[in-house]
Amino acid sequence: MKIDVEKCAQLLGEWDNILILCHAHPDGDTLGSGFALLRAMQGLNKRARILCDDEIPSKYSYMLDGIKNEEFEPDYVVAVDVATVSLLGSLQETYGDRINLCIDHHATNTKYAENLLLCSDAAANCEIIFEIIKALGVKIDKKTADCLYTGLTTDTGCFRYSSTTSNTYRCAAELIDLGADNGYINRLMFETKTKKFAALERLATQGMQFFLDERVCVITITNEMYEQTGTDEQDTEALPPLTRQIEGVEIGLTLREKKDKTCKCSIRTFESVNAADLAGAFGGGGHKQAAACRFDCDIESAKKLLVEKSKELLK
Amino acid sequence: MKIDVEKCAQLLGEWDNILILCHAHPDGDTLGSGFALLRAMQGLNKRARILCDDEIPSKYSYMLDGIKNEEFEPDYVVAVDVATVSLLGSLQETYGDRINLCIDHHATNTKYAENLLLCSDAAANCEIIFEIIKALGVKIDKKTADCLYTGLTTDTGCFRYSSTTSNTYRCAAELIDLGADNGYINRLMFETKTKKFAALERLATQGMQFFLDERVCVITITNEMYEQTGTDEQDTEALPPLTRQIEGVEIGLTLREKKDKTCKCSIRTFESVNAADLAGAFGGGGHKQAAACRFDCDIESAKKLLVEKSKELLK
Repeated sequence: MKIDVEKCAQLLGEWDNILILCHAHPDGDTLGSGFALLRAMQGLNKRARILCDDEIPSKYSYMLDGIKNEEFEPDYVVAVDVATVSLLGSLQETYGDRINLCIDHHATNTKYAENLLLCSDAAANCEIIFEIIKALGVKIDKKTADCLYTGLTTDTGCFRYSSTTSNTYRCAAELIDLGADNGYINRLMFETKTKKFAALERLATQGMQFFLDERVCVITITNEMYEQTGTDEQDTEALPPLTRQIEGVEIGLTLREKKDKTCKCSIRTFESVNAADLAGAFGGGGHKQAAACRFDCDIESAKKLLVEKSKELLK
Repeated sequence: MKIDVEKCAQLLGEWDNILILCHAHPDGDTLGSGFALLRAMQGLNKRARILCDDEIPSKYSYMLDGIKNEEFEPDYVVAVDVATVSLLGSLQETYGDRINLCIDHHATNTKYAENLLLCSDAAANCEIIFEIIKALGVKIDKKTADCLYTGLTTDTGCFRYSSTTSNTYRCAAELIDLGADNGYINRLMFETKTKKFAALERLATQGMQFFLDERVCVITITNEMYEQTGTDEQDTEALPPLTRQIEGVEIGLTLREKKDKTCKCSIRTFESVNAADLAGAFGGGGHKQAAACRFDCDIESAKKLLVEKSKELLK
């Protein structure tokens, strides 16, 4: 059932023993959403816990400050920023068919939850969580403001992407007034490169390939490049935006080789092509200008498939 | 005389035949300030004109849409985002001693103008100009909103730097509601790299040097690198922020060789060092975390001087 912010706040106000699920390969928006909601629930003296299939990258560790995250048998399960159950990773098995509430901003949401609060015009899921917490009447402390701000800034490329609305900016202003440390968070998210990442980035940009009259740019990250630079998949998050920064490029593809030689692709586009359509052709999904999909084949074969489909979509 | 926004709006309301001066080597904030003010003045049916010592980079050409910029003998001269008269370049000779009003946000402003509106807590000068235009009661159209938004986003590295306040975000939200095309402007300012710039960037990052326990990072741009990539100085604007992105770096220096083999340096720092202090030691200036200076010597000698002074400031 589709619900609105009021109804969502009412349900959360009534519930207790709540498990919050983030999507696998977590980013700042799913974690910011999850931890802000956890803090709000615990602020209302409810028992709440957060789970994610993958380890939380260390750069987000400030979100965990001062929270309890103890195991218990949940009465209610809430998924945040999770467009489809498969994105829960291995948690799908246990919880996939018992999600009581999903709070999401992906237009591609597969409506798997009993209750769905979907605001696809929100640039970040944290914009919705912010509204819910306000509707719940919980005091928003500095740490919660930090979590919410993190979601806003990471899902908008630091307020850069065209998905960013005046509401996104207004939320950011409010959160800064509530204590969010925007300078610190942005420095951590966008301004800090390890030397090994800088080395990977150089290899990646050196190997950039262009297709279809240079309207498609491809970055390829192989296991060999990880070895050579001492990096791993976690270090690749900042690479996809580089592909569409080259003048004239309409589709940017970042192909990452997995240990088993299959691969994943991050897709970035501008207005001319819907990234979710391209990802969707291979069973993936996402937003209009940022999406992703997986392949069971090697990088070269995946590249061929992606360029072929791109040709179709660029017409 | 130091004045406030009210008084500034009152003066501008009374004046006519106004010449607006931007600083040389113009950036988005001085141009956004200048063109927004020009549009506001012309919106009040005043004669106004804008002048800058250097050519306006083509990426800002949308600011010029639909304005008149005809020559006339000015009765009043207004400098925007100009910390000191030397930054006017060759315009200093004609106008340096007759600036009636300066609207600026640099704490280092040398108080050269008859009337000075200085708000050093504004992340961008356009925040101040926005307030003035509102105080003047002129309707802010889409094009003016675009100019003002450009200043906000360029002077804050797209709302990234710690100088960005909740007011900066609030201004951005208002300007988007007034029609500013944030997606388009940010794409143009931050997401569009020419292939030749991408090549220059690769050369620059390949040649990064580290000093003083890797707390200082230096990028060097030589005339040879310009030749090799088909770029020129105008293409280097996006390089300085790269220096301080490497983990552990506190001072980032970007040295650019000039045709006559002397050089300029852009300085980026974090909280631990005041960039304006480092630049000031060599006759330059700027903000706490972004400043610049010139040298009459070659790059290697300048580098030595800068690293020595950095050692002092890092203590």
